[in-house]
Amino acid sequence: MHNLSPWAETLRLAVEIAATLAFALSGLLAAARKRLDAVGVFTVTFLAAFGGGTLRDLLLDQRPFFWVAHVEWLWGLLGLSAGAMLFLRHRHFEPTERAMQWPDALGLGLFAATGVSKALDSGAPALVAVLMGVVTGVFGGVLRDMVCNEIPRAFHDHQPYAICAFAGGWTYLGWWWLTDSPSQALLACVIMTAGLRAIALWRQWTLPGWRI
Amino acid sequence: MHNLSPWAETLRLAVEIAATLAFALSGLLAAARKRLDAVGVFTVTFLAAFGGGTLRDLLLDQRPFFWVAHVEWLWGLLGLSAGAMLFLRHRHFEPTERAMQWPDALGLGLFAATGVSKALDSGAPALVAVLMGVVTGVFGGVLRDMVCNEIPRAFHDHQPYAICAFAGGWTYLGWWWLTDSPSQALLACVIMTAGLRAIALWRQWTLPGWRI
Amino acid sequence: MHNLSPWAETLRLAVEIAATLAFALSGLLAAARKRLDAVGVFTVTFLAAFGGGTLRDLLLDQRPFFWVAHVEWLWGLLGLSAGAMLFLRHRHFEPTERAMQWPDALGLGLFAATGVSKALDSGAPALVAVLMGVVTGVFGGVLRDMVCNEIPRAFHDHQPYAICAFAGGWTYLGWWWLTDSPSQALLACVIMTAGLRAIALWRQWTLPGWRI
Repeated sequence: MHNLSPWAETLRLAVEIAATLAFALSGLLAAARKRLDAVGVFTVTFLAAFGGGTLRDLLLDQRPFFWVAHVEWLWGLLGLSAGAMLFLRHRHFEPTERAMQWPDALGLGLFAATGVSKALDSGAPALVAVLMGVVTGVFGGVLRDMVCNEIPRAFHDHQPYAICAFAGGWTYLGWWWLTDSPSQALLACVIMTAGLRAIALWRQWTLPGWRI
Repeated sequence: MHNLSPWAETLRLAVEIAATLAFALSGLLAAARKRLDAVGVFTVTFLAAFGGGTLRDLLLDQRPFFWVAHVEWLWGLLGLSAGAMLFLRHRHFEPTERAMQWPDALGLGLFAATGVSKALDSGAPALVAVLMGVVTGVFGGVLRDMVCNEIPRAFHDHQPYAICAFAGGWTYLGWWWLTDSPSQALLACVIMTAGLRAIALWRQWTLPGWRI
Repeated sequence: MHNLSPWAETLRLAVEIAATLAFALSGLLAAARKRLDAVGVFTVTFLAAFGGGTLRDLLLDQRPFFWVAHVEWLWGLLGLSAGAMLFLRHRHFEPTERAMQWPDALGLGLFAATGVSKALDSGAPALVAVLMGVVTGVFGGVLRDMVCNEIPRAFHDHQPYAICAFAGGWTYLGWWWLTDSPSQALLACVIMTAGLRAIALWRQWTLPGWRI
């Protein structure tokens, strides 16, 4: 995608691993709460981790999917699911979820930036590119919740989540237009998205509801 | 798609705008009833308006999607969602829904005709083309209901809706075979679909249930 | 896909028809239990029969879908849905379901083998190919349950089903590597999958749950 310098590439990879783990764990915990079996646990974990990017690639008609090009991630998820079923207990759920908020916020920013960048590469207009960033960051969780037979949390918990990715996506575009540097734009998107998300968590911001 | 004369093109555009608005409003109201937040309201509105055509294009492997080629519609939906959250109140829901029945019936016909036409262009056999017409007209509502965690209304309310689009699709094919004129076929499909739908609403027809 | 000898081809076709019928009937019965109308019955029947293969082809970006290339199957499903609504009664449900277990097990194997084979043809790595086999065999039922607003049975009933297809998929790969004969690999996959599934039904095996 981008030509990043080696240390930036290493940093990106570290963030990517931490973020994908955070996304995957949100699927694991949702599956555990619904008492799914091993097949359900793996599927929901997979959807939470890779569902957003896969949906984006389906919509943009891009192949190969990330998990086809990097099949080692699938093995990792299989191992993670099996390990979690063996070792993760109910008392670990809440602390795991709290610890994952921060890599999840970073991941939201990184995935949004990846989505915007891929959509721009495929010639999408600005608003579509930003929405593809949101889809990449958010729709894994949406698919996770739909399979678990819940209204997607991202659509009704009134917490700023997709909105942060939306703002981050525009930041990506703006920075890229200003500097013509995709790696700076990536960084700006991650900082804006994760920053907004962190402030929203800290200040317990809520989205405006419908004053029906 | 077709070469319509200018006035026919203007009429088609007017019907398209009214119909898409009717479809979008059905999503808006469903989202409001589930008390979704701003993100959910926009997503469900988008799915109700463009989900059917997007699913058709995914299945036919056609790009670009309507909302990528006409990104102004996305801005319109964003504005509509925001405006509705500011100004639409509970007491408006029922009258809105009633007023939308007629543009919705027209839209069902127009979307079905568009779906049949696009499927034929891509070489689909007759039955597949008619089903793609039904998908275009009906599956926006199906996706809307699935995201709202409901059994899709089109599948269990025993009202003729998809059936009208099915009949309209065959009308499109028949007329097109007879006259070789896609714009006449489009008109015949809209008249048949919307007419059947209007009669069904007026006479309160119901689909045969399963005599279990 | 494969070059099978004529009698093997006839056998494959017979298994395919029996299996698709078993899958379709699982959709029919689910739709009947939810008291869907004619539109819902056909849609859920279609999804149960062809949803898995269609999702696989979407992911692999392969066209045409089976039901576009073999549109006679769509007519068959339309006839089956109509016939079932006329003649199938509540007292038939349980015996139908029991009788369908065996063609369903065969179908799971055949569909898994088809999925693995198609994925390998498109250049997918081994694990992805096996998962595509599982998707082909299992995700028709997943989509059926999602549309019926249930958590997919395959994800929480703790019965070995997807697991059998998973084992069958690796059997396909192993046999194919050993013998370089796709038709033998197909046979090995069907025998392994259906055999495991039959033993699981007979011995009432259950998947390990999450010891939360």
